[in-house]
Amino acid sequence: MINVVLLGAGNVGTHLYRALNKANDIALLQWYNRSANAMKEAKGKVELTTEIDTIKEADLYLLAVSDSSIALLSNELGKRKGLVAHTAGSIPMHVLDKHLNHGVFYPLQTFSKQKEVDFHKIPLCLEANTAQNLLLLEQVAKAPGGPVYTIDSTQRKALHIAAVFVNNFVNHLYSVGEQICEEHQVPFSVLHPLILETADKIKSLSPEAAQTGPALRGDQLVLNEHLKQLTKTTHKELYSIISAAIQHHG
Amino acid sequence: MINVVLLGAGNVGTHLYRALNKANDIALLQWYNRSANAMKEAKGKVELTTEIDTIKEADLYLLAVSDSSIALLSNELGKRKGLVAHTAGSIPMHVLDKHLNHGVFYPLQTFSKQKEVDFHKIPLCLEANTAQNLLLLEQVAKAPGGPVYTIDSTQRKALHIAAVFVNNFVNHLYSVGEQICEEHQVPFSVLHPLILETADKIKSLSPEAAQTGPALRGDQLVLNEHLKQLTKTTHKELYSIISAAIQHHG
Repeated sequence: MINVVLLGAGNVGTHLYRALNKANDIALLQWYNRSANAMKEAKGKVELTTEIDTIKEADLYLLAVSDSSIALLSNELGKRKGLVAHTAGSIPMHVLDKHLNHGVFYPLQTFSKQKEVDFHKIPLCLEANTAQNLLLLEQVAKAPGGPVYTIDSTQRKALHIAAVFVNNFVNHLYSVGEQICEEHQVPFSVLHPLILETADKIKSLSPEAAQTGPALRGDQLVLNEHLKQLTKTTHKELYSIISAAIQHHG
Repeated sequence: MINVVLLGAGNVGTHLYRALNKANDIALLQWYNRSANAMKEAKGKVELTTEIDTIKEADLYLLAVSDSSIALLSNELGKRKGLVAHTAGSIPMHVLDKHLNHGVFYPLQTFSKQKEVDFHKIPLCLEANTAQNLLLLEQVAKAPGGPVYTIDSTQRKALHIAAVFVNNFVNHLYSVGEQICEEHQVPFSVLHPLILETADKIKSLSPEAAQTGPALRGDQLVLNEHLKQLTKTTHKELYSIISAAIQHHG
């Protein structure tokens, strides 16, 4: 049995709480957050605390807090024998090196509190300062049942940037699609199957090989026509720059 | 029973053949294509022809050919009593108005010959020059079992542009993600669950509401760091312009 203290009750923290609380080989000793309100779903199920001084000794401390709070919280924790790991994509492991045992436990997924996610489908990207610490993280990571990767800080940084492209930026393009639909009184749901199929294709085809459309065909007539039709300057700009990138395989 | 002649054996034509061939209330009289080779999967199952002059009388002629071939093929068909409809997103209905009965039968989906699609999940966007012709298209469209919409030429054009954003452009961002992963020896499959979840979210949350990430938070530190890390000029350019669009809800 691995004793874990979870710190943070934002999107990642909340989903981690739900996953760890279900896991068989993990004892969730405490859940810490500055405000108690964000943890109310766990009332009576796990020990809750808003006082950093009351945090118990554990095998693993998971810091599921915002990038800018990691260093501060790590200091507030004080010297600990247990492994201290953060869950952030873009923060290097070494910010935790005041702790003898430290590492990273990065769930690569997009979390909204409103939408349940299957933790067993979430890739966990791990890094630790020793082989033994990595083993401990692996044991915890395997509990939810998803894919587990060993990823160093440089790779994780790259992965985080790639994630911004395929998540935040892709989502923005969905939002542009929705705006265009609304402007023409077409329900955005007409586009849902296309969006889902485009995403699903990556499982069997490389996106480079899956590409289609007027930009790839170099169909200047359609490209000009589309640019003319777009009413928003930002949309025109995005249209031009992404079409050019497609044409130059950029 | 509705008699249909299908023309064209590209991606859309091939998938339409498969869907129509399975449909109960539709008799696929002929499949026409300039070259016989693209239709070989249908040999012995449906009458195949490469000669436009041999095309039979039918209730519906579906022109599933490239945008630039529609007008030509429509002329070659000659005067027909049956309904002549094309399947293109960006071509107005009126290019077919030499035919007394004409319309549009636009399946809004991305097709690759290599990947099977569930036609019953594909939205069919219909337009016709008379109410009776629309009824005929609706009967055919309902056979595969997917959602059916009546969409006029102006709306369809807008929809096609929106589709370019949520399909071709999104797919390009996947490709950028893959390039970044390859550069850092990280398997692209680490990003698959994130890609699928981002797409799945649109079913329950508007993309505007679902947005997260450094650009939305205005986290200039992370934005600068990411820009510094990117090695390709195109990627930097895409990163800047899409981040700015997110910040201005553009």
